[in-house]
Amino acid sequence: MQRFPLLGSLLAIALCSTAIATEPLASWRDTSPKKAVVAFVNKITDEKSSDFVPPAERIAVFDNDGTLWPENPMPFQLAFSLDELKRRLPEEPDWKNDPAVKAAQSDDLHPLLADDYKGLFRIIALTGSGMTTVEFADRVRAWLATAKHPRFDRPYDQLAYQPMLELLAYLRANGFKTFIVSGGGADFMRVFSERVYGVPPEQVVGSNTRVVYELREDGPVLVKTMNDLFIDDKAGKPAGIHQFIGRRPIACFGNSDGDLQMLEYTTIDNPRPSFGMIIHHTDAEREYGYDKNAKSSGKLVAALEEAPRRGWVVVDMKNDWAEVFAP
Amino acid sequence: MQRFPLLGSLLAIALCSTAIATEPLASWRDTSPKKAVVAFVNKITDEKSSDFVPPAERIAVFDNDGTLWPENPMPFQLAFSLDELKRRLPEEPDWKNDPAVKAAQSDDLHPLLADDYKGLFRIIALTGSGMTTVEFADRVRAWLATAKHPRFDRPYDQLAYQPMLELLAYLRANGFKTFIVSGGGADFMRVFSERVYGVPPEQVVGSNTRVVYELREDGPVLVKTMNDLFIDDKAGKPAGIHQFIGRRPIACFGNSDGDLQMLEYTTIDNPRPSFGMIIHHTDAEREYGYDKNAKSSGKLVAALEEAPRRGWVVVDMKNDWAEVFAP
Repeated sequence: MQRFPLLGSLLAIALCSTAIATEPLASWRDTSPKKAVVAFVNKITDEKSSDFVPPAERIAVFDNDGTLWPENPMPFQLAFSLDELKRRLPEEPDWKNDPAVKAAQSDDLHPLLADDYKGLFRIIALTGSGMTTVEFADRVRAWLATAKHPRFDRPYDQLAYQPMLELLAYLRANGFKTFIVSGGGADFMRVFSERVYGVPPEQVVGSNTRVVYELREDGPVLVKTMNDLFIDDKAGKPAGIHQFIGRRPIACFGNSDGDLQMLEYTTIDNPRPSFGMIIHHTDAEREYGYDKNAKSSGKLVAALEEAPRRGWVVVDMKNDWAEVFAP
Repeated sequence: MQRFPLLGSLLAIALCSTAIATEPLASWRDTSPKKAVVAFVNKITDEKSSDFVPPAERIAVFDNDGTLWPENPMPFQLAFSLDELKRRLPEEPDWKNDPAVKAAQSDDLHPLLADDYKGLFRIIALTGSGMTTVEFADRVRAWLATAKHPRFDRPYDQLAYQPMLELLAYLRANGFKTFIVSGGGADFMRVFSERVYGVPPEQVVGSNTRVVYELREDGPVLVKTMNDLFIDDKAGKPAGIHQFIGRRPIACFGNSDGDLQMLEYTTIDNPRPSFGMIIHHTDAEREYGYDKNAKSSGKLVAALEEAPRRGWVVVDMKNDWAEVFAP
């Protein structure tokens, strides 16, 4: 019982030195978005302020694709799923007749993204079912260890946006619990979220289907099925936040119209002070440039229009970020 | 940035004094269950031991009804739902023809508990839908403020087992994240879990149905529906653990066959050291006495039979607990 508090004390002293020694948002230029987030954090952590928010209620939610890492030339999980499709297709002859599979085998992936990404979710569900959760995580791990992004020539999990990693750490250092709330599959993101983002699996909310428990000869397993698909996107995001977190966030970070509803849910008539931020992809040179003409996922029109009225801070990636990726 | 670490440092010193001053499991008699849990915690927190488990992986899961508070004469949420049924029935004429509603209005509630509590879940879903999540939480709060347990004549939320409150606090003081994993409704438990158990809403896994997001004139709401009922009981518990927590627990506390599968999932072939505990209701005088002949929920046969083979610790409530409730 005594070892822990002592450790805490040492840790607190260590944190104190770190806070003095390093600049928490070093990859952000000193422009209005950085100033806005720092002002918000200062306000809600000031115990003397009427805007003070107790640590337990400091919930921050982050979209993943396009907010914490890129979503071009296609969402990274789709790249994984297409590789899995190729690998498993010889053993799964039934798949050949599936319209989504046919679309996935053509050069033009746009049909997969139509109708609220219906085909994309179908491919993800198909390639992510019929195996145990452990087998699936092993496949994701193996893919991350070998696959590389076609443009940046790096493993996908080395493409997290450096300014956003700093923002996650900054919020946590100020008592926030940081959650991912993404249309991506929870089981996919949980493989790397702790290592890459410092977000533990229990703070990852994503799309999912049911798993079925079995006690096998060699131990208990959970088999991934395609049943009861929950799509954690658009109006599904506030629903997912309620179901998995059970309280209203006070800070929300997104980049597309898929994040509109969770931005609303976080900031409109929230009894607590709240903060909304949109990452606008304005940097075709260092990353990608898109909004209404998104190349894959990430269409941004309605949320950008709403931003001034709602007080959401828009990050102009080109001007507001000194670095995009870690060197 | 500097205020927090200093606060942490002070907090660490405060915690240190508390640890020296108070006995963490004061309401447990000095019998084998207490010794077993302390030995397990000492082992997995000892950095020099090969059994050391890093804090991030110290996940403990607790059943609620019959494990953290009583489940007699009926599960407390059923008591709430029956009161709600009475209140809402005049406005919901369609409900009168529902077989579960008919059963609920009779004196014999056993039909509601038959067939894996099908009728019970129907009543809970019916009375917990067609309103916003905020309205539902307000109803639960109002009920807890007025309703009293028929035998103990206390508000229901003052009937948490004192030894289990101490156990929750003891595990948290040793770096565990404590989760509730219960057949009860998540939205019901989240109203009091933080205040009563110190378990925040985001660490409550329970039965649930979908909510639907709406942006209304007076702000965003989530409407509770009866769709996609997930029953977090029996084989649903390991499924719920995976879906909501996303990693395997190392400690599991239950009291009935509804907890058998999560005990298995926690302890069988776990690559980490693990611990399972069953609360056996042997104390008809201070609480209730039941196992195979459960009066409401809480039948305990298979898990009790498995306990010796699996190394699960069985708590004999009468002998192992010095106190059952806080005075």
